[in-house]
Amino acid sequence: MSFELALSLDRPGPLFVAIAAAVAEDIARGRLVPGARLPGTRALAESLGVHRNTVVAAYAELEAEGWIETQAARGTFVALSRPADRPRRFAKTAGPRSEVPRRLGFELRRDVAPFMAPPTARFDLRGGLPDLRLAPHAVLARAYRRALAKRGGALLDYGDPRGLGELRVGLGEMLSTLRGLAPAADDVMVTRGSQMGLWLAGQLLLEPDDVVAVESFGYAPAWRALSSTGARLRPIRVDEQGLVVSDLEALLTRQRVRAVYLTPHHQYPTTVVLSAGRRLRLLELAREHRFAILEDDYDNEFHYDGRPVLPLASADRAGVVVYIGTLSKVLAPGLRIGFVVAPPALVERMAALRVQVDRQGDQATEAAVAELISDGELARHVRRMRRAFHARRDVLVSELRGHFGDRLRFRVPAGGLALWARAPGVDVEAWATAALARDVSVRTAKDFSFDGRRRPYLRIGFGRMNEDELREAAARLARAFSESGRSRG
Amino acid sequence: MSFELALSLDRPGPLFVAIAAAVAEDIARGRLVPGARLPGTRALAESLGVHRNTVVAAYAELEAEGWIETQAARGTFVALSRPADRPRRFAKTAGPRSEVPRRLGFELRRDVAPFMAPPTARFDLRGGLPDLRLAPHAVLARAYRRALAKRGGALLDYGDPRGLGELRVGLGEMLSTLRGLAPAADDVMVTRGSQMGLWLAGQLLLEPDDVVAVESFGYAPAWRALSSTGARLRPIRVDEQGLVVSDLEALLTRQRVRAVYLTPHHQYPTTVVLSAGRRLRLLELAREHRFAILEDDYDNEFHYDGRPVLPLASADRAGVVVYIGTLSKVLAPGLRIGFVVAPPALVERMAALRVQVDRQGDQATEAAVAELISDGELARHVRRMRRAFHARRDVLVSELRGHFGDRLRFRVPAGGLALWARAPGVDVEAWATAALARDVSVRTAKDFSFDGRRRPYLRIGFGRMNEDELREAAARLARAFSESGRSRG
Repeated sequence: MSFELALSLDRPGPLFVAIAAAVAEDIARGRLVPGARLPGTRALAESLGVHRNTVVAAYAELEAEGWIETQAARGTFVALSRPADRPRRFAKTAGPRSEVPRRLGFELRRDVAPFMAPPTARFDLRGGLPDLRLAPHAVLARAYRRALAKRGGALLDYGDPRGLGELRVGLGEMLSTLRGLAPAADDVMVTRGSQMGLWLAGQLLLEPDDVVAVESFGYAPAWRALSSTGARLRPIRVDEQGLVVSDLEALLTRQRVRAVYLTPHHQYPTTVVLSAGRRLRLLELAREHRFAILEDDYDNEFHYDGRPVLPLASADRAGVVVYIGTLSKVLAPGLRIGFVVAPPALVERMAALRVQVDRQGDQATEAAVAELISDGELARHVRRMRRAFHARRDVLVSELRGHFGDRLRFRVPAGGLALWARAPGVDVEAWATAALARDVSVRTAKDFSFDGRRRPYLRIGFGRMNEDELREAAARLARAFSESGRSRG
Repeated sequence: MSFELALSLDRPGPLFVAIAAAVAEDIARGRLVPGARLPGTRALAESLGVHRNTVVAAYAELEAEGWIETQAARGTFVALSRPADRPRRFAKTAGPRSEVPRRLGFELRRDVAPFMAPPTARFDLRGGLPDLRLAPHAVLARAYRRALAKRGGALLDYGDPRGLGELRVGLGEMLSTLRGLAPAADDVMVTRGSQMGLWLAGQLLLEPDDVVAVESFGYAPAWRALSSTGARLRPIRVDEQGLVVSDLEALLTRQRVRAVYLTPHHQYPTTVVLSAGRRLRLLELAREHRFAILEDDYDNEFHYDGRPVLPLASADRAGVVVYIGTLSKVLAPGLRIGFVVAPPALVERMAALRVQVDRQGDQATEAAVAELISDGELARHVRRMRRAFHARRDVLVSELRGHFGDRLRFRVPAGGLALWARAPGVDVEAWATAALARDVSVRTAKDFSFDGRRRPYLRIGFGRMNEDELREAAARLARAFSESGRSRG
């Protein structure tokens, strides 16, 4: 028989797969008919100029997929039935079809406001986000490979909804070194970002009409997760020492409060650190009034001046703190690795609830991250990033001072990835719009304020752009400032 | 100066990282003090017997991490301040501490039954689960590497909560080839397993006290997701043609039904295929009564006898079907890649809701799976698995017939990964317990029945064990059968 294989060698992967794919395609197209005899492995190997073992492997693959059959002592033949049978219709109206109906044939009983990502630009000063050009892609790719090679099928199977044991242990060790918390594995749950940790805790802590205190300037995605329970959120003021705990105390005289959600370390968005006195008072109040403190410690490691402060959770003797962390800032937000440290009674219920939602985390990613922790790559990466962000902060501060002087007032943030600046008497919305036209994105107070009102504040991030880009972005901000000033005056 | 580096070369990864780690450790331990001068790169390279560029790279790493400082024309010195400052306490009671409190200092407002994984054993016949020893680990590891190399930072960033565009396109093409549906990317949402798709759809479709019809033998994790909304579930009988649609029709005369959840292709757990007449009637009823059909098509591809049937979604002209699929069976459950095909009005709201819960999927995994689809690896893997499972089904069927004859009655399932067998007059719970003692796990009717009652049925899986293991497992099942019979009689 004559058999010419149209072999395309530009596909990635092993040669035997390419040969098998070419034969399968010839069968699928009808060039090789059912029952036809295929050349022997030796003959085909010679005609293709490859090692015979490569053809043997290709035939084994084709047999495993059901394209061919080998009959002992007789040879290799195209299988009589094709492996990929087309599905059958159950009615004339059944597919194949090119469209999903545009309209819904049923009512939705609940609406959710559509998700809108904040506008971004080439010079991205939205704040809070790390520079993913510095993320350790190659190291991460190796970690995936090692994890899959080491743990194989177990990673791809159903597993513990609290997260992979070795990652829970690794996170515990990391928290012990860096944050004065040394949780056992049973005190830790790995979540998909801090968002899931907060969402799960909220579902268990809150019922409709329960009261939750939040910062009057804060993190709106967290508020949405908490209010999805039907709970009512009450804003508490934030000043230069963080949450005004005496205002919370006043609220407690009037209402039962079930939980307080806050960002004590680098308050989001103002970057202030909650003072020691207020920390102690908050813990006392929680014990006395039996409310939960949802402590969101999202970027603890990025602290530049002096030492970072230990989390509230490190002084919790009463079981009132639910500690929520994330690797979104120190590693990358797209990995969606967050964690919660809490008494096991809460961790177990969070895990049971999560089973209903998504069953478990992505174990391949969890194992890869556990590798990065255990071999020290994560700690090294954090040190590199801290140093880079420290330098970037200093560049941004000096550029803003040079361009704006007194027209933009801010304290140099001791940590975090952004600064919070006041522009007295300026229409910051017009400024931000003019900046976007010049390819610079910043965010204004209204994105963070509980009441949604406009106020003359900007959040300017320095984590995502390098030093040269920050210089250029500051210059563009200055031009946008003059333009938006002119357009107003 | 004399400087002897205690270099451990047994760590994985590049040599320059090992050298940097050794120097950093000496600084951390105080063997190298702040301000001390380090040897030149040439001298250190010679003393270590490595290329000078390796030492240059190690010094660059150490500088990036903040351990050392290079002063032009003067040399390299240990930095004056240590990069990893210990955090400071804010009170005497603040950590470091070794324990998280055991008791909660606040009330939980909602309880969730603790999660219990079903018991498993060496011979795992629990059914429905694929054999992960056959999962393509190495191919997957390469796909992660390619995806991270190609897409880099973008994968690690925030992205579309509906899932990565290229995976939505790839899934659409796969559904078009295999399932007679050709959705546009906007009709597809990638979810974390079918569980999240079902959970999200349920949250939007159902309010407390709404009625949902489900199969009287079915998939309990789906029921829990649906009833978490406060909706009331109503079981509908299943017979040898699948869901008894006339029973649903009777229910519709008495109650407003908001949704029907079912597994029409290989009914879970009985494996029967919903008949064509019932399919058409169900679609008519949905259009007329404006309820949603939640079609869970969890293992469509594993069909052995005749052609698989197209999904209900392929004949939906009224926008009533929410089509839910998963790669848990065809690839691996641990990857948590599921998908929903529905009109964009629903997809967009599901995405907005998911932002509150976990923001977005694992994009590295989504990109790796998109690679497996586009390069044909997934299709090849499905063909290999189908062939393997077909052979395993035949072995299990013949072994069970040999060991049990008429005492175990079943139809040979046309597809799926398990069979549903009746053991008339047998205490199947006692049998399953005796089997577990012999290291064989099977599941009984009560795990699947809506009313939780015991009935003389077993679900016996053949996906997870190879042919030899199935023979051994069947022999052990037979011994357990005699034992449990004796213990009863």
